[in-house]
Amino acid sequence: MPNLNPQVDLLIESPTRAFDKIFEKLRSEGRDVIRFSAGEPGIPPPREVREWLAKFLLEDSARLYSYTPSSGLRELKEAIAEDLRDLGGVEVSIDQITATTGGQSAMFSVLSATLSERDEVILIDPTFFGYTNLLSYMRIKKIFVPVSIESNYMPDPNQINERINRGKTKAIILVNPDNPTGRVINWNIARDIAEIAIDNDLWIIYDEPYRTLVYEGEHVYMYKLAPENTIALNTFSKDPGIPGWRLGYVYGPREVVKKINMIVEAITYNPPSVAQYLAIQYLRDRELRKRHIEYVKRVSAEKRDLMIRELGNIRDIRFVKPSGGMFLLVDLGKVLDETNISAKVFSEKLLEEKAVAVIPGEFFGETVKRSIRLNFTFESPERIVVGINRIREFIEELKGR
Amino acid sequence: MPNLNPQVDLLIESPTRAFDKIFEKLRSEGRDVIRFSAGEPGIPPPREVREWLAKFLLEDSARLYSYTPSSGLRELKEAIAEDLRDLGGVEVSIDQITATTGGQSAMFSVLSATLSERDEVILIDPTFFGYTNLLSYMRIKKIFVPVSIESNYMPDPNQINERINRGKTKAIILVNPDNPTGRVINWNIARDIAEIAIDNDLWIIYDEPYRTLVYEGEHVYMYKLAPENTIALNTFSKDPGIPGWRLGYVYGPREVVKKINMIVEAITYNPPSVAQYLAIQYLRDRELRKRHIEYVKRVSAEKRDLMIRELGNIRDIRFVKPSGGMFLLVDLGKVLDETNISAKVFSEKLLEEKAVAVIPGEFFGETVKRSIRLNFTFESPERIVVGINRIREFIEELKGR
Repeated sequence: MPNLNPQVDLLIESPTRAFDKIFEKLRSEGRDVIRFSAGEPGIPPPREVREWLAKFLLEDSARLYSYTPSSGLRELKEAIAEDLRDLGGVEVSIDQITATTGGQSAMFSVLSATLSERDEVILIDPTFFGYTNLLSYMRIKKIFVPVSIESNYMPDPNQINERINRGKTKAIILVNPDNPTGRVINWNIARDIAEIAIDNDLWIIYDEPYRTLVYEGEHVYMYKLAPENTIALNTFSKDPGIPGWRLGYVYGPREVVKKINMIVEAITYNPPSVAQYLAIQYLRDRELRKRHIEYVKRVSAEKRDLMIRELGNIRDIRFVKPSGGMFLLVDLGKVLDETNISAKVFSEKLLEEKAVAVIPGEFFGETVKRSIRLNFTFESPERIVVGINRIREFIEELKGR
Repeated sequence: MPNLNPQVDLLIESPTRAFDKIFEKLRSEGRDVIRFSAGEPGIPPPREVREWLAKFLLEDSARLYSYTPSSGLRELKEAIAEDLRDLGGVEVSIDQITATTGGQSAMFSVLSATLSERDEVILIDPTFFGYTNLLSYMRIKKIFVPVSIESNYMPDPNQINERINRGKTKAIILVNPDNPTGRVINWNIARDIAEIAIDNDLWIIYDEPYRTLVYEGEHVYMYKLAPENTIALNTFSKDPGIPGWRLGYVYGPREVVKKINMIVEAITYNPPSVAQYLAIQYLRDRELRKRHIEYVKRVSAEKRDLMIRELGNIRDIRFVKPSGGMFLLVDLGKVLDETNISAKVFSEKLLEEKAVAVIPGEFFGETVKRSIRLNFTFESPERIVVGINRIREFIEELKGR
């Protein structure tokens, strides 16, 4: 076999694949896994738009199947601009928007368009696994600013400022509402970060996939605070819930969006047309759009509160109530101390023995390597109760060993 | 605005976007464009699979919308393996297959996984625009082996052999059936190229999007001739005709497919689930699958023959009857000599004045910069007649100026 490009080996498998073998074993045994490990909401798109699309499928025309412009259909970009204006008071024109083939291609395209080998970027530790993995692949230097459970995982703008290396640091990456912590920054912190970016001529790569899933407080649109510096990443994976269909978008200054679009075109030609048509139909019906957001938010907040109530029955764990998003990070420090295992081994054994899947914190950063991430939106209320109970039993059994 | 990565500027816009402004002007004037420029077949997927998918959409479950494994659903890979076995006698196991987010992401992933900066690759001139563009972006050296209309655009294995630079040349890229020429290589040429690749430890990056669209002769599966060296790229864009939905696949040696899949995961996470479900349903019904191939082939061959008949009315042009694929390359050399314009200017004026869109040859290589590419499958028979007639009129008017 001829040679390969060794750069590929800088990529590691995503955390959701980490336990593929155990999953397969459990499946072959016919065991049903409770998936707190999922990265998706588990709620299908509103029935109205699915019915509309089903009719479109029956038309004997090639229109639904055709290539689209690589930045997305004009109608999609118009609907996104209207949605940003309506929900966030964000004013962008359609040439400041490019659709992307899901959040992953948005990340890949934004990083490729803005950063070069050996540039430095500032990230919060913990942060979404996708960024650290891609930055390693692109040979970009990661400078971490740690946050802690004691300060509710809130980033400190002063610490960000201190880590900037003039001329080398090119961007700050911020996921908000956060994955894996569920932390939502307030306006003051956002403004301080915006000012730091403006003063130091940095990009703010602002990932807001859960912007419609804020339970307490309000989502801050960074673009409004630093329109020349902010590249905002969005997705339709969480809302209206088409993660597998791969549709997202990016907005920011016209010139950078044009470059990001060139990368989107180079990696996938165009974002999936079928997902674009569904999103257009969804976003254009503003009443349906708002009704669905409220529905998803209510259901998700109820599940979050249920999970928190159930976690209250487990001793020696700590967590911060998430204000947004889909995830809750549980600090197992005391349990791991007592039982002398890592969060990764904990997660493996939990899956093998109790058929409950979670993601070990090490995928998100050094600071949370003794935590596990739980998705509180994916499973039904009944299964959340069963799953958390199994975790409680598992911890008690571990301690007794 | 902060800096960008200058590497992005190595990418150029795809040929289908080259005339966006003229297109928009014509659209605003309400003029209907005959699109011989299209890169797609214009036939929707079989009604049976669309009806099946429409029902699936109405299920109140998140299954159709969920993330899939990044290499595709197991059922898809099984159906692809069976299809390759059935149609081509190709024997590959499912871990030798990864689904991709369309042919573009297959190209990007294959090139990223196998080639490093400053490596050399051999390409045929002309070749599909997508490759030259990505290779420029990745700073990989392109070594062209020219073909000519006199030898029916058939590549000469001896010339390929002569251009190999031991230790530097890493791959031969071959599109077959070809875009833009419609040329189909025979078994002897394929065997010679396979031997050259084996002898020199080169990858054969073998792009076969039109493998089911061969009108005369038979498609050669290069993988059977050089299983350790061949990386085959495929797509569902042309058959069953879901170009906008973005689904393709790659097969080859297990180790390289695993690496290619890591890039697929890095750029798009997973290929669109909705396209995967449709493809599974289509491929699994072997009788429907074969019936649809025959239907598309018959319709496409009829349109090809019609276009050739109509082109027969135009003086001073040359072309080779394409044996496969969707395209016909028309050599305008004599017309351009007489009128003293380039094929690009010809194409621009043709679109502006006659509302007929074609792709100028320069996008495909130096050897065909005096040709234009016509898609013979996209438009209806009636519109093919009208379109070719307008080209005839246009050439006559040009000569009279």
